[in-house]
Amino acid sequence: MDFAFDEKTEALRTRLLAFMQSHVRPAEAVAEEQARQAPDAWSFPPALRDLQAAARAEGLWNLFLPGEYGAGLSNLQYAPLAEITGHSPVLGPAALNCAAPDTGNMELLALFGSDAQRKEWLEPLLAGEIRSAFAMTEPDVASSDATNIATRIERDGDSYVINGRKWFTSGAMNPACKIMIVMGKTDPSAPRHLQQSQILVPRDTPGVTIRRGMTVFGFDDRDHGGHAEIDFVDARVPATNLIGSEGEGFAMSQARLGPGRIHHCMRLIGMAERALELMCRRVVSRVAFGRPLADQGVIQDWIAESRVRIEQARLLVLKTAWLMDTVGNQGAHTEIQAIKVATPEMAQWVIDRAIQAHGGAGVSQDTPLARLWVAARSLRLADGPDEVHRRSLARRELRRYAGSSS
Amino acid sequence: MDFAFDEKTEALRTRLLAFMQSHVRPAEAVAEEQARQAPDAWSFPPALRDLQAAARAEGLWNLFLPGEYGAGLSNLQYAPLAEITGHSPVLGPAALNCAAPDTGNMELLALFGSDAQRKEWLEPLLAGEIRSAFAMTEPDVASSDATNIATRIERDGDSYVINGRKWFTSGAMNPACKIMIVMGKTDPSAPRHLQQSQILVPRDTPGVTIRRGMTVFGFDDRDHGGHAEIDFVDARVPATNLIGSEGEGFAMSQARLGPGRIHHCMRLIGMAERALELMCRRVVSRVAFGRPLADQGVIQDWIAESRVRIEQARLLVLKTAWLMDTVGNQGAHTEIQAIKVATPEMAQWVIDRAIQAHGGAGVSQDTPLARLWVAARSLRLADGPDEVHRRSLARRELRRYAGSSS
Amino acid sequence: MDFAFDEKTEALRTRLLAFMQSHVRPAEAVAEEQARQAPDAWSFPPALRDLQAAARAEGLWNLFLPGEYGAGLSNLQYAPLAEITGHSPVLGPAALNCAAPDTGNMELLALFGSDAQRKEWLEPLLAGEIRSAFAMTEPDVASSDATNIATRIERDGDSYVINGRKWFTSGAMNPACKIMIVMGKTDPSAPRHLQQSQILVPRDTPGVTIRRGMTVFGFDDRDHGGHAEIDFVDARVPATNLIGSEGEGFAMSQARLGPGRIHHCMRLIGMAERALELMCRRVVSRVAFGRPLADQGVIQDWIAESRVRIEQARLLVLKTAWLMDTVGNQGAHTEIQAIKVATPEMAQWVIDRAIQAHGGAGVSQDTPLARLWVAARSLRLADGPDEVHRRSLARRELRRYAGSSS
Amino acid sequence: MDFAFDEKTEALRTRLLAFMQSHVRPAEAVAEEQARQAPDAWSFPPALRDLQAAARAEGLWNLFLPGEYGAGLSNLQYAPLAEITGHSPVLGPAALNCAAPDTGNMELLALFGSDAQRKEWLEPLLAGEIRSAFAMTEPDVASSDATNIATRIERDGDSYVINGRKWFTSGAMNPACKIMIVMGKTDPSAPRHLQQSQILVPRDTPGVTIRRGMTVFGFDDRDHGGHAEIDFVDARVPATNLIGSEGEGFAMSQARLGPGRIHHCMRLIGMAERALELMCRRVVSRVAFGRPLADQGVIQDWIAESRVRIEQARLLVLKTAWLMDTVGNQGAHTEIQAIKVATPEMAQWVIDRAIQAHGGAGVSQDTPLARLWVAARSLRLADGPDEVHRRSLARRELRRYAGSSS
Repeated sequence: MDFAFDEKTEALRTRLLAFMQSHVRPAEAVAEEQARQAPDAWSFPPALRDLQAAARAEGLWNLFLPGEYGAGLSNLQYAPLAEITGHSPVLGPAALNCAAPDTGNMELLALFGSDAQRKEWLEPLLAGEIRSAFAMTEPDVASSDATNIATRIERDGDSYVINGRKWFTSGAMNPACKIMIVMGKTDPSAPRHLQQSQILVPRDTPGVTIRRGMTVFGFDDRDHGGHAEIDFVDARVPATNLIGSEGEGFAMSQARLGPGRIHHCMRLIGMAERALELMCRRVVSRVAFGRPLADQGVIQDWIAESRVRIEQARLLVLKTAWLMDTVGNQGAHTEIQAIKVATPEMAQWVIDRAIQAHGGAGVSQDTPLARLWVAARSLRLADGPDEVHRRSLARRELRRYAGSSS
Repeated sequence: MDFAFDEKTEALRTRLLAFMQSHVRPAEAVAEEQARQAPDAWSFPPALRDLQAAARAEGLWNLFLPGEYGAGLSNLQYAPLAEITGHSPVLGPAALNCAAPDTGNMELLALFGSDAQRKEWLEPLLAGEIRSAFAMTEPDVASSDATNIATRIERDGDSYVINGRKWFTSGAMNPACKIMIVMGKTDPSAPRHLQQSQILVPRDTPGVTIRRGMTVFGFDDRDHGGHAEIDFVDARVPATNLIGSEGEGFAMSQARLGPGRIHHCMRLIGMAERALELMCRRVVSRVAFGRPLADQGVIQDWIAESRVRIEQARLLVLKTAWLMDTVGNQGAHTEIQAIKVATPEMAQWVIDRAIQAHGGAGVSQDTPLARLWVAARSLRLADGPDEVHRRSLARRELRRYAGSSS
Repeated sequence: MDFAFDEKTEALRTRLLAFMQSHVRPAEAVAEEQARQAPDAWSFPPALRDLQAAARAEGLWNLFLPGEYGAGLSNLQYAPLAEITGHSPVLGPAALNCAAPDTGNMELLALFGSDAQRKEWLEPLLAGEIRSAFAMTEPDVASSDATNIATRIERDGDSYVINGRKWFTSGAMNPACKIMIVMGKTDPSAPRHLQQSQILVPRDTPGVTIRRGMTVFGFDDRDHGGHAEIDFVDARVPATNLIGSEGEGFAMSQARLGPGRIHHCMRLIGMAERALELMCRRVVSRVAFGRPLADQGVIQDWIAESRVRIEQARLLVLKTAWLMDTVGNQGAHTEIQAIKVATPEMAQWVIDRAIQAHGGAGVSQDTPLARLWVAARSLRLADGPDEVHRRSLARRELRRYAGSSS
Repeated sequence: MDFAFDEKTEALRTRLLAFMQSHVRPAEAVAEEQARQAPDAWSFPPALRDLQAAARAEGLWNLFLPGEYGAGLSNLQYAPLAEITGHSPVLGPAALNCAAPDTGNMELLALFGSDAQRKEWLEPLLAGEIRSAFAMTEPDVASSDATNIATRIERDGDSYVINGRKWFTSGAMNPACKIMIVMGKTDPSAPRHLQQSQILVPRDTPGVTIRRGMTVFGFDDRDHGGHAEIDFVDARVPATNLIGSEGEGFAMSQARLGPGRIHHCMRLIGMAERALELMCRRVVSRVAFGRPLADQGVIQDWIAESRVRIEQARLLVLKTAWLMDTVGNQGAHTEIQAIKVATPEMAQWVIDRAIQAHGGAGVSQDTPLARLWVAARSLRLADGPDEVHRRSLARRELRRYAGSSS
């Protein structure tokens, strides 16, 4: 057992921390001002382009992707880097071409895409030339139960025809988003986990209508592509757009979830660290009733408890990354669920205290805290609500005792 | 001891519940659509005008105001009505001309205003013809400590000249807002609670600059007048605009806080009830893993616990109202602080569970839940953070034991 | 609505508070010393006899019992008195002949007992000459589900014959306990709520074996009669010992639960007040790191939050008492469940903080805190675990929305 | 970074788990029965002797002690073994001669004892022939602040004379306890952390009076030596009994705390695992309302959350052990405080749910749960209350930002 990062990771951490300090943090205010100037645009702010160019020049690019197409890092090597991008969650991941949902889509294409699919979509995604979306959740059903998915993908000659409604398709409002991976049912009569398929649908396909951007609390997340509600009405794509074979959609979505969740969780830890930093800076400089807030016992309690919770969550995420590397995503299933439950709750707790320590500034646009909080809160729902994961965790735990008596 | 409402209150509750059902709830979607159609307007949506006319016709008008100028209800009689308006917090209170901060401003003018002030500002406010704002909080200091207030109100001949910066001045972005009550220091060298004064400043006074609307978890609350950041640079008003005498500002703000807080708390209870209703409706109709969410033990736990918490908080608020009526705001000081701490936390808890039960819809614009949550969360900061109230409560409790030994 | 106690209640409160101060609190140390001197006795300490005599002389006797046999108070009148006895929970209730389980047993006999039963058992109980026990919970089944009860009560000629095992039969270790009311099934084939009956079983009946005293977090509660595990093997009693008719056992146990729970809850509030008092006394007198604990923000937070929680719980209990008086135990069912869930949790929270403020003394025999905590914790299980009550509460809440859609 | 135990550790874990299964768990009931048979004895139950002999034969002896005198394991190697002993906390650690406070005393003597002191006291302790105690906490002062310690150790010729009162001196009621290490002040006028010394005081020294055993909730912990209150009145020991030099007492107590705390925390994790195991076994076998408790969502929630919390706490403890091994106790100071705060709270949470799942059995002598809970709760106070550690943690965190502005 060894709790030190390996040399490669340490070196990358050092470079990435420097990059965040010199490039990304200073760009936060610039990007926000650009977004304010273009209130109707769903595009990335121009400042992001510059960051991407700089990151690429620094070799901080596609770090998330193992294997030949990406930086070739293990999950355990990438995890602490993802954490650092979370210090600036709007710009950091996108600057390094490591932002969801592109990461999951690129990984899916790398693993399961045909040569033609990789050439047409993976290459421009890896180059940061286009963006993508993943259309899974539906408004009308509890989508955490994949068998509820109602969208149909029906074969018709050399085409598939898609019908259904999706929402919270993140990034799809962005005009730079050119391609969507859509989850739907090719065969509702098949066994429950063989009904689903995934298919590539260009955003400009006739029959695809972007209805509106969903808001999350009061944010429309305009600056990172929003969360679209989309109608698919007889949207037709070539049969070659299917990823893998019919019926493999559920299995592929499971493959995608492991890394996706660990990325989310590591970024959340970075977000919690950012919030703790902001809280500390605030309380040493703010005076009430004659002394700095930092002298108040209740505030100290929040800071200590934040540190204690962050450290615990980080270690569990890192262990999960190590398990994924050593025993595979399936072997790490319990831990992946555990971090999915533990990390958003931890981050939400820390950020909430940081907000409280800031007073009105904490809920406003003048600090990143409100956004951080909303991101953490949303992840208690995204990719399945906590309750679904807890039930699954419990069943696994109980399985050891089946048939036993107390 | 008797836990039944009196007849007058029951009658008003019945009428108000009917009005909410027949007029206000149906107007929610209309008003939201109107707001969407006018994305740049900081005004009330037109639907509100109609509601106000209807409410006035029904005699459901200015219920908050005791004494000759208002409906003459006691705090205990008004409290359950304020709760009902909280079922629809954007439209309900405003429809009845019972929305903050106008309520506090009207009360202040009724109690402390000169005849001329009442004629010029109270009358149109009572008639719902204009709106008002209360400029207290400042960005640069911990405003929960009133001695920190930095805005200056200086006498210069027949005028007062105001300099300072305020923020979170709710309602002041609304063009219908014609008058602001500004808190500042007339004499920084006086004893700590005699330094402050309150003064009427028309919004169009030269030297008054509305800089921007502050957001609250991404919401700009455009449809109820926003939360302005305002610069006062040599803003000059007649000396007769001072409310009461110099140095009475702190005492008047204390007088204002009692009713203001109890109104907030009652509305929060209504908001929690709305959230619980939405949660129940959702879970009986939504199916996951083969059965309604309502059958899941964890969901049942939330519902039961919500009911238990709401009931407790409501009773404490009602008792506080009764104390204010019987022993005065000062005598109810401890309880006022207690409800200020207990109610937002309770409401936040209930609303959070309702959000979780809704999945993505819960955080989006498709339910009122995200807004309700933000309102509850903000009230853990507004009018002083919980921590300030808790400290004050503790000191009062400890005073009984001063000098005692264990 | 009126939050003041009526005159009679106020007068009784004043007298009872004085009695607690002058008699009961000083007797705490005496009784504890007497218990230490008699480590093998399961009897009440002699000091209690004196307290009972004094209470009776003061007219503070059988206050719990409405109607002709008792003091004739309403639930709302008795509730604040029960609270006061909770300040000293080992001695207070017993001093006034208002201790569980005798209270419930006396109430049951008053309501449902035959004349002969009342003469033989109720009279000496009302006089405080004997004690009683209520044998309901069984070790082998989840007794919160009454249909699980396995003890049999079988008719055999002029007798009933009882077989089964009970535990946590509180008070039954005490040699002064002469009579037990036993819950069991007379007809397991009847509809689920008509299977049970209740029967009077003298403690010295052949076939009744007191096996041992159960401990509760290490306490054997020797000084108030312990918690017995009891075997019934062909224990035979006259058929006239049945209370009411066969099959009425479940209904009678429901009748008993309402008052029983409200008494428990009121005492818990008194226990929480005692803990808060102890915490305050401790922190004003104890110095660490150069200043009294009372100056620490975290401690102040506990004190304030304790006050806020106690006030809320008390009001809900009082309202429940009022409902029982005005609409009956059945009409108050929801509230009775709500207080059963809310009050132990509140009390446990407050007492835990008081313990923490006391350091080692808090967990030791030198303060009443550890015992208070155990009492509160146990009540989250006794009379059905919280989870059963929450589920029932939720179902009632959801019933309003059955068939509705979101 | 590597989350696998090394080979040596894995081998020891396997052997220890087998030993717990084959020897320790079966002895639990035996030892408890022996304790019941000897209600007045403060000695270990005879069953422990057999376990110790077996453990020694298996080479599972003194595992806690690094260096030449013990098993020579690192903290990281010992930590998972300490966890396993926590599965049976009354017998497990003592069976392996790894029970507090002997472990800390042996470590102190190994590090700082003179040759003579080691020969006289360390050797029989290592052999398990005698037991020891550590007298630090005092009833009259907040002992978490070492400068409050009031016990005096005064030089008088070739002797030291000790005066003062200690309590919660664990193990000192046991007649096998032959030696105590006493913390006191040799020079109250020295700088605050140079006032204290530690000295060896044989339990039978004239002037040493064992006054009573303190209880912890209702337990007197008779079977592992109780918690003594002790008077020292002119107790005289040879000057050579001083450990180290005058004024080194505080530094030595700090040296002792690191390993002591990590041992406590690891055992707590084992205790939480035991509780979770008991909870799972209970709920799969217990039926209420027609189905096993294991099917209830709320129960599943507890189980999942328990697993999530245990995993996080364990990793933080292991990392702390690794830090102690790699950068020393001082370098691991923050983490040592973090685990001291996090682990008892986690264990208390898990055990509380296990109790709730057991109903009455959970609070009684029929499961180990009540004892486990009390152990976890006590550790939120022992070695300094959580609040002291949190404050210290916060100050360290804030130090990075001193002088910064937000």
